[in-house]
Amino acid sequence: MDFKKELKQYQNLINNELKKYIETKKCPEEILNCSMEYSLMAGGKRLRPILVIATYQIFKDDIQECMPFSVAIEMVHNFSLIHDDLPGIDNDDFRHGKPTNHKQFNEATAILAGDGLLNYAYRVISQNLEDSRKEDLTKKIKIFQEFSNAVNKMIIGEFVDTEVEGKQISEETLEYIHQNKTGALLTLCVRMGAILAEVSQEDLDKLTSYAEKIGLAFQIKDDILSEEGNEEILGKPVGNDRILKKCTYVSKYGLEVAKEKLEELTKEAIEELKIYNEKAEFLVELAKYIKERNK
Amino acid sequence: MDFKKELKQYQNLINNELKKYIETKKCPEEILNCSMEYSLMAGGKRLRPILVIATYQIFKDDIQECMPFSVAIEMVHNFSLIHDDLPGIDNDDFRHGKPTNHKQFNEATAILAGDGLLNYAYRVISQNLEDSRKEDLTKKIKIFQEFSNAVNKMIIGEFVDTEVEGKQISEETLEYIHQNKTGALLTLCVRMGAILAEVSQEDLDKLTSYAEKIGLAFQIKDDILSEEGNEEILGKPVGNDRILKKCTYVSKYGLEVAKEKLEELTKEAIEELKIYNEKAEFLVELAKYIKERNK
Repeated sequence: MDFKKELKQYQNLINNELKKYIETKKCPEEILNCSMEYSLMAGGKRLRPILVIATYQIFKDDIQECMPFSVAIEMVHNFSLIHDDLPGIDNDDFRHGKPTNHKQFNEATAILAGDGLLNYAYRVISQNLEDSRKEDLTKKIKIFQEFSNAVNKMIIGEFVDTEVEGKQISEETLEYIHQNKTGALLTLCVRMGAILAEVSQEDLDKLTSYAEKIGLAFQIKDDILSEEGNEEILGKPVGNDRILKKCTYVSKYGLEVAKEKLEELTKEAIEELKIYNEKAEFLVELAKYIKERNK
Repeated sequence: MDFKKELKQYQNLINNELKKYIETKKCPEEILNCSMEYSLMAGGKRLRPILVIATYQIFKDDIQECMPFSVAIEMVHNFSLIHDDLPGIDNDDFRHGKPTNHKQFNEATAILAGDGLLNYAYRVISQNLEDSRKEDLTKKIKIFQEFSNAVNKMIIGEFVDTEVEGKQISEETLEYIHQNKTGALLTLCVRMGAILAEVSQEDLDKLTSYAEKIGLAFQIKDDILSEEGNEEILGKPVGNDRILKKCTYVSKYGLEVAKEKLEELTKEAIEELKIYNEKAEFLVELAKYIKERNK
């Protein structure tokens, strides 16, 4: 499998889908729409929607069913990035090598663009529910519920992360932050794909475990990159966590232990997919990619 | 009818319902929960949930069906107040005579509390959908869709309002701001009550017209109060709109015309309810209250 090529295909698929949702510009709120588009199309990895689709594809082919939820999750992800970057929270000037939303536009626009994207995700879900066949409603309502609960966890994780800045924190608190801030949404993605594909409870549990492991691996890799990544490739300053005395996996356990943990989690995550054989090849490669990525 | 007494009863009903949704405090996000509770229970008029319930009661008695949507709409309203008050938007220090959320807590907490309340509204709706009987799903999904569209309009209205600050604007733009920023949500409330009660299209149109008229009346009254209200009763400074050169109904047309328009809209709104006789008495009195309130 040519993973890079498949990844690119997924990314193109999602970028094209997202473009359909960019709203008309000749209106009084034109700048707000531009601001949402700016962040949404700023070149993210599309990891979350890819997880939805690739999980679904282990079991089923017709991925159209996944698209609204893939779009919605990417909107939520971008909402969280815009708000996290705000002067009142992380006060970051760059993301993906470009000015952050409030730097490119202004603070009011960034706050409202974030609000707009969060709400847009639910507009997409609500439209999708209305258009659904009766027999699909039950699973989609379940997804809607898991979706809103995961977003809640993400907000909680971000809050606790902000609260503890510059403080020494316990292992439990660090785990709590990771599980909520990034883990909940990544797990949601895999579960959405699985629930849409109507998998058994056993499969759902296995895939949830895979998701939880790559979720933590993703965060640990983020912490490692933030410590020793390449600024130009990352598109944002390196070493900021240390300067801000942020408590991360790296600051708490050191680079060596962090890297070992990353190896271990990746291995365990891949193990969960074993029974799906080549059907899960992309998700296996994705776990490796999360470990090895340089941005 | 003792309107003040009935209003108080509605407010108590809603306050008690909202309290059920206040989340556990012994957790790492305790302060975030306190911050959401602070704004949610800060003594708002509960106009929006009251509109849902009172509209429903023209047709049906068992208001339990209305409660989740009433809670959700009040959460959305409070999310918008918290974000509007932020330093990056209106930079207000007081609301309901108390420090605004970011003054009482801090900016990061206020941003995330607003996000949390917006998302909480959808958690409530999603839970309600999951628990619904099959035959109720169609109307509730329709409401979910109207809900997310109205919130979108509210965000757009707030954005355009922010954009035009200090500028002279056309009649059309002023109307656009009003219809979106406050009108859309108030109209949604009445429509939610009506759709839940399964009214005819004719009734829905009539009630929508009532809502649009009191929505605009509400905004005009707000502008009038902001110009000549009593600071102590309002709980916020008076004359700010003029100082900020905000384009309002009053600054554009003058106090006299604004007051005439308010009279006219109230009369027209009440006219729409005529066919419901005493069943709509509370909504008639509510329209008068919107016109006559001093806060």
